[in-house]
Amino acid sequence: MQYTPVASPAAPSWRTRYQAVRDQSQALCAPLLPEDTVVQPIVDVSPPKWHLAHTTWFWETFLLSEYVPDYQVFHPEYAYLFNSYYNSLGSRVNRADRGTLSRPPLADVLAYRAHVDAAMAALLTTADALPASFYELLELGLHHEQQHQELLATDIKYILSTSPLAPAYLKEAVGGEAAESAGDHARARSHSPASSPASWLPVPGGIYRVGFQEEGFCFDNELAAHEVLLAPFELQNRLVTNAEYLAFIEAGGYRDFRYWMGEGWELVQAQGWEAPLYWVQRDGAWFRFTHHGLRPVVPAAPVTHLSFYEADAYANWAGARLPTEAEWETAARHFGARPNGGTWLESNAFDPQPVAPDADPTACHQLLGDCWEWTYSAYHAYPGYERAAGALGEYNGKFMVNQLVLRGGSCATPESHIRVSYRNFFHADKRWQFSGIRLARSVNV
Amino acid sequence: MQYTPVASPAAPSWRTRYQAVRDQSQALCAPLLPEDTVVQPIVDVSPPKWHLAHTTWFWETFLLSEYVPDYQVFHPEYAYLFNSYYNSLGSRVNRADRGTLSRPPLADVLAYRAHVDAAMAALLTTADALPASFYELLELGLHHEQQHQELLATDIKYILSTSPLAPAYLKEAVGGEAAESAGDHARARSHSPASSPASWLPVPGGIYRVGFQEEGFCFDNELAAHEVLLAPFELQNRLVTNAEYLAFIEAGGYRDFRYWMGEGWELVQAQGWEAPLYWVQRDGAWFRFTHHGLRPVVPAAPVTHLSFYEADAYANWAGARLPTEAEWETAARHFGARPNGGTWLESNAFDPQPVAPDADPTACHQLLGDCWEWTYSAYHAYPGYERAAGALGEYNGKFMVNQLVLRGGSCATPESHIRVSYRNFFHADKRWQFSGIRLARSVNV
Amino acid sequence: MQYTPVASPAAPSWRTRYQAVRDQSQALCAPLLPEDTVVQPIVDVSPPKWHLAHTTWFWETFLLSEYVPDYQVFHPEYAYLFNSYYNSLGSRVNRADRGTLSRPPLADVLAYRAHVDAAMAALLTTADALPASFYELLELGLHHEQQHQELLATDIKYILSTSPLAPAYLKEAVGGEAAESAGDHARARSHSPASSPASWLPVPGGIYRVGFQEEGFCFDNELAAHEVLLAPFELQNRLVTNAEYLAFIEAGGYRDFRYWMGEGWELVQAQGWEAPLYWVQRDGAWFRFTHHGLRPVVPAAPVTHLSFYEADAYANWAGARLPTEAEWETAARHFGARPNGGTWLESNAFDPQPVAPDADPTACHQLLGDCWEWTYSAYHAYPGYERAAGALGEYNGKFMVNQLVLRGGSCATPESHIRVSYRNFFHADKRWQFSGIRLARSVNV
Amino acid sequence: MQYTPVASPAAPSWRTRYQAVRDQSQALCAPLLPEDTVVQPIVDVSPPKWHLAHTTWFWETFLLSEYVPDYQVFHPEYAYLFNSYYNSLGSRVNRADRGTLSRPPLADVLAYRAHVDAAMAALLTTADALPASFYELLELGLHHEQQHQELLATDIKYILSTSPLAPAYLKEAVGGEAAESAGDHARARSHSPASSPASWLPVPGGIYRVGFQEEGFCFDNELAAHEVLLAPFELQNRLVTNAEYLAFIEAGGYRDFRYWMGEGWELVQAQGWEAPLYWVQRDGAWFRFTHHGLRPVVPAAPVTHLSFYEADAYANWAGARLPTEAEWETAARHFGARPNGGTWLESNAFDPQPVAPDADPTACHQLLGDCWEWTYSAYHAYPGYERAAGALGEYNGKFMVNQLVLRGGSCATPESHIRVSYRNFFHADKRWQFSGIRLARSVNV
Repeated sequence: MQYTPVASPAAPSWRTRYQAVRDQSQALCAPLLPEDTVVQPIVDVSPPKWHLAHTTWFWETFLLSEYVPDYQVFHPEYAYLFNSYYNSLGSRVNRADRGTLSRPPLADVLAYRAHVDAAMAALLTTADALPASFYELLELGLHHEQQHQELLATDIKYILSTSPLAPAYLKEAVGGEAAESAGDHARARSHSPASSPASWLPVPGGIYRVGFQEEGFCFDNELAAHEVLLAPFELQNRLVTNAEYLAFIEAGGYRDFRYWMGEGWELVQAQGWEAPLYWVQRDGAWFRFTHHGLRPVVPAAPVTHLSFYEADAYANWAGARLPTEAEWETAARHFGARPNGGTWLESNAFDPQPVAPDADPTACHQLLGDCWEWTYSAYHAYPGYERAAGALGEYNGKFMVNQLVLRGGSCATPESHIRVSYRNFFHADKRWQFSGIRLARSVNV
Repeated sequence: MQYTPVASPAAPSWRTRYQAVRDQSQALCAPLLPEDTVVQPIVDVSPPKWHLAHTTWFWETFLLSEYVPDYQVFHPEYAYLFNSYYNSLGSRVNRADRGTLSRPPLADVLAYRAHVDAAMAALLTTADALPASFYELLELGLHHEQQHQELLATDIKYILSTSPLAPAYLKEAVGGEAAESAGDHARARSHSPASSPASWLPVPGGIYRVGFQEEGFCFDNELAAHEVLLAPFELQNRLVTNAEYLAFIEAGGYRDFRYWMGEGWELVQAQGWEAPLYWVQRDGAWFRFTHHGLRPVVPAAPVTHLSFYEADAYANWAGARLPTEAEWETAARHFGARPNGGTWLESNAFDPQPVAPDADPTACHQLLGDCWEWTYSAYHAYPGYERAAGALGEYNGKFMVNQLVLRGGSCATPESHIRVSYRNFFHADKRWQFSGIRLARSVNV
Repeated sequence: MQYTPVASPAAPSWRTRYQAVRDQSQALCAPLLPEDTVVQPIVDVSPPKWHLAHTTWFWETFLLSEYVPDYQVFHPEYAYLFNSYYNSLGSRVNRADRGTLSRPPLADVLAYRAHVDAAMAALLTTADALPASFYELLELGLHHEQQHQELLATDIKYILSTSPLAPAYLKEAVGGEAAESAGDHARARSHSPASSPASWLPVPGGIYRVGFQEEGFCFDNELAAHEVLLAPFELQNRLVTNAEYLAFIEAGGYRDFRYWMGEGWELVQAQGWEAPLYWVQRDGAWFRFTHHGLRPVVPAAPVTHLSFYEADAYANWAGARLPTEAEWETAARHFGARPNGGTWLESNAFDPQPVAPDADPTACHQLLGDCWEWTYSAYHAYPGYERAAGALGEYNGKFMVNQLVLRGGSCATPESHIRVSYRNFFHADKRWQFSGIRLARSVNV
Repeated sequence: MQYTPVASPAAPSWRTRYQAVRDQSQALCAPLLPEDTVVQPIVDVSPPKWHLAHTTWFWETFLLSEYVPDYQVFHPEYAYLFNSYYNSLGSRVNRADRGTLSRPPLADVLAYRAHVDAAMAALLTTADALPASFYELLELGLHHEQQHQELLATDIKYILSTSPLAPAYLKEAVGGEAAESAGDHARARSHSPASSPASWLPVPGGIYRVGFQEEGFCFDNELAAHEVLLAPFELQNRLVTNAEYLAFIEAGGYRDFRYWMGEGWELVQAQGWEAPLYWVQRDGAWFRFTHHGLRPVVPAAPVTHLSFYEADAYANWAGARLPTEAEWETAARHFGARPNGGTWLESNAFDPQPVAPDADPTACHQLLGDCWEWTYSAYHAYPGYERAAGALGEYNGKFMVNQLVLRGGSCATPESHIRVSYRNFFHADKRWQFSGIRLARSVNV
């Protein structure tokens, strides 16, 4: 599933990369207690223990069992326990039941990881003997594990959020203080940087090529790059902020059906939504649960943890719209989006960050990192897309209906994992990812 | 919501059209017993009595109450009882509870229709005094009622199908006999016309304009015609037949996850799907419930009553794919699709019909009428689409997510209701409409 | 299942009784429209058409098919369509799907009844040749049909109640007027008879025999009469009135968990119960839906349409308790309860009636008729009870857990159907029967 | 809620008892990993961490906060987190959500326990100053914690059972070996003691007193001892064995509706029940999950983990019935049941044990300990029962409908916790407790 030639499969470099990615997964779980690693409060959220095991299962199933003669699996039941959704690979634990399994315990899962890492390290020393197909799977496995790192970050947040104790995942806040009272909030507000004003940046119409066309790795769903015809449009130069979204809330946005898709409006009423996920009101001020505990809502920071329905309703209220994924990708190339401008998993911020008040208003900020940006494009196969044969054909292809595309990565995405052509996808009602809003508007010519 | 100028709003012609459409709705219910008009076996299916009343409510609410001074509504509670989904117009009966209301009885609903028809007839004599906005609503009302005629035809089929007695809606079959035994089936099979062989018809790539661009009426969701860039592709010259689909069934198509979208595969297993809706096996032969009772499956006729999941799985199995809606519409214009070649509601066939064995293999058949054709395009707003203000903004706009577009009309669509730009839409799991399969494939250049 | 000898199986008398019971079922449906006979708004409520057919199925299945050589069933599918719950007799329509079947229509069901009645009439002329087992089944069939007459009365009420039009089943009210406004209510209140004051009547402790011990027919669940030891207790001399129950409502009874069983309290909150079923408030006054449309609540009349949870909570609030079924039956014999003092189906009142203000305070009123009286006894088999072999063993025995006993019949029970030993039973949450409250209290000796 | 005078509230003895009970709860959790203490695989099963905290909350809420001036609660949120079902004490975590809370972690809960134990120890040194009401609550608290010890034992079993790894709670088996193969099973079978043959023991009819009438503590639901009249009956001298129950399975008991209550039969089909909970078949032999992992079914041991429906169906099949609770209690007194003959929590067997093959056939075995015995008596208030005022009135009273009584304690009950008058209660479908079958039959006189 790695489709562009690997420049130089030099063994040391691969081993280093492999181990770095593997270490990162465990580092994310280091602040957790064993108790935190088993629960599954909603079906979307998998137990961290499961993530640690499933990513390991991937290496064992797709690489070690294929390329190591006489490889001994760590435990014969783990193939059943830690298969995620591959019908090709037999039966598996029902997804909704992942949180019922206290065993194997975390310690056994860590031993499983060590067993597999040792076997992988040994295998990677034999690099010369390995075919190109091995390196394609290796690259895929690294990106697979990075995807689960993002899920680890967001699932951990959800797990800790269910306790009324609002426990902090990390003790030291990044640029902020824990909110213990409404007084803190007032202080936080006065300290908080002014929002950079939003501006509209034009993108000319024309025929553009979308899909993977840079170097390196991509997923199969980015393939079959193809041309699209776009009308001229404008994109806002930064993400929508908490302050802007609060204006929507205060204008009664959650109580006016006219802004909402029908299925979204039903959800708003059935679930009693009044604000983004994790927001709570204390003494009239808005706080939100974060990896650092309960914190005041920062006006200048991007609003996040929104469903598509909320992003779309906000855009309607604001007299704008969401971009399509082709518009988004074209704009990202047009404005020269680079990962190094954004907030990533490695920052340990676990929160999208505001644009500096003095940021260049003619530049397009936050395209990569900070928040996944909902597009108004269904997650469908690109023209010419073909599912791979075998189990890996189930990696992406069978999800290509009923979901929407999100673009650009988030503060929970590893920096090396993202591309302008990267296609993430969720159902319209999901809110537990770091999802936000980028506004677009059509230009009448 | 009628967006192109009305050529000549001559009162007599409008009155004739109005009454013809209204009569057609009642004619569809003439074969029913009062008992048939109240039940709602699944939430998608509305009671015929409700359709008759709701279409009447539309005229009363949007036209009579607006344009007739001192208009007296037939009954003050009917606004609540027969509002379908307009939040703008207040509360309403929960959609799933339409089948609990035995009252008002059919006779009262028919009196309601007569009351409103008399008032409309009187109003239409005052044509000169009425503004253009009235005629836009009048046109919309006629198309609204035609939409419900199609639903009447398909909902009646579903309602009658739930009885083990398999009652016939119409006694005389159109080109066929009721099947009482497997012997009949063998006979039917030997009588049935040979299928016309399928051929692939090329459509050149290029920039095409899609959306409403002909004369007359259209719905708002067809508006904002715009250009799209298409790669060259081929379309099959007719719909997939029952014989072809049966080959998929017999090849184990319903038991092999590899052809299916993930959510479709879960549904196949949870619901035990083994064939299209309404198909049953008797003594080894396939029959299907029709408006004429239980009949043998006709090999040369188009397969119908399929979900998107089944249409898509079949296409995967057949090594092809479904067209996008832009491809479909472009091909329909390219091949000069005309309504008069298809099977419509007015035929009383209530079944898609086979292509004649000697049909021209270089022509594209059945594009309009016979079966709605699933496309692999999400039902989203066209670029530049704008929701109307007020209640009519809820007509189409709020459904523009999570559904797929179907094109071309069916044997249950009134002939005057269809256009090449017409966009129908359903969730991927729906099967009670006359939905079928048109195959497409990409051309490697 | 008729366990006491039949006095004189004289054919004419049996024919007269048979036809009278059959006519009564159809008379109950005479005011209905065909539309009313098919719907099933909740799973507990069966369509009237189904009741008419199922009672007919009983005769065909248990008598005609057994005792008439070469009997031809009316329709081969009806055995499947109209079996209620007898596993012994094969598969059947799912209970929750009875309301999806518009066919066979009412006319066919009436023809079915005529077919069976003619066959039964012919059979009953051959009385001399019929064994005693036939007469036992005949007696059982008559009581079975009377049970369904009660259900017809209560199910019709529920069906008509779901329409916001509040249609009247009977046009002429019995001792009251339709309430169109709060003014009517005030008038009704001033007109309404004063409540007879409640008094407590003592029943001495001792060993009593309970269960069927009079003459005539009984159901198998009354059998195995047996002795019980009762402590002395007191019973109230009449049913709890609407005025008394209103005091409970106004005292916050529905908002104070302390009076409620845990599962009842959860239901109160989940369903938002604030009053008995069918009660609605208009302009500050309480009305209730009746067979005569919407009527003011009559203070002196017995409160009805209560769940066990409400009856029990009221008793707790009132410092009393519900009687056990042994207490109830013993008191009924002790006070010489007679059917002719109560309100029955035949009265066409379809409403429990107040005790006359000048009624004897030392007599025990309303024990039979008016309202079923919730007891605090689980519906279990009596000691020594034995399930009959064959299908009739499913008549009562398999329901003997998780339900509570109600005693005394109601205004929807045929007068000839009741006995002091009669055991009715429903789950604790059911409210659509005419169920009310009789208070009891223990006596400290 | 301790209703008989406390003989000698000598402080040292109370302190010793208090600490012993508290230690026992923690000892039960000692073999667990932190991961095991948080999950809630079904709503009936609470996380062990929750049990440890809730029992501690009881002491803090009902004793320390009431009797220690200026008592400082360990954490202000714990009152919300660890309230089980007391509406009197405010809102609480939804019961079904107990398994979503990873925090507070086990370590904090143990610190909570230490904090409360220290405060209790200090308080108990001031014994002379404490009123009798304190000692009543103290006694109640000890029995409350013992109830949760039984739940800990059974909930832990369920939690570990959900893992396909079948982990053992205890490594060393009590009188048995872990079964790894069918060969083990054959060996186990040949080793297993022969079943003691069952005999019927008569109990004469008469007036008996039931309810609490011995010395010491009882729950309020045992109070209001009262007289009942019993017909003569016979009880089997031991519990039904696995071998006997297996005969029922092999005779098709789970496939024949005639033995079952209607709601039980629906459950058998919906859940696919074919054997008791925890039974699995491997290579044709039956095994069951135990606290010691997967073990062969021991023929002579009592069958356990049955719902009421299964116990009742077995009794029907066997031509017998279940006893009522009055019969059970009377027989227990009649046969002089003593705790010291049974298997209790303290044995660490966690499994009911067979009667010795040479046991006295005229004695009644296993009445106390081993398995809870389903009775055919609804769990209702005894005549004269009164709910206590305040929160403790919710302890038992609000559950007194829709459940069935079980008697006699089990191998998971602390020995000092049981009495012949003890009333346990569960819904008819519950199987995760150590519930079994004692047969009774009526005697025809």
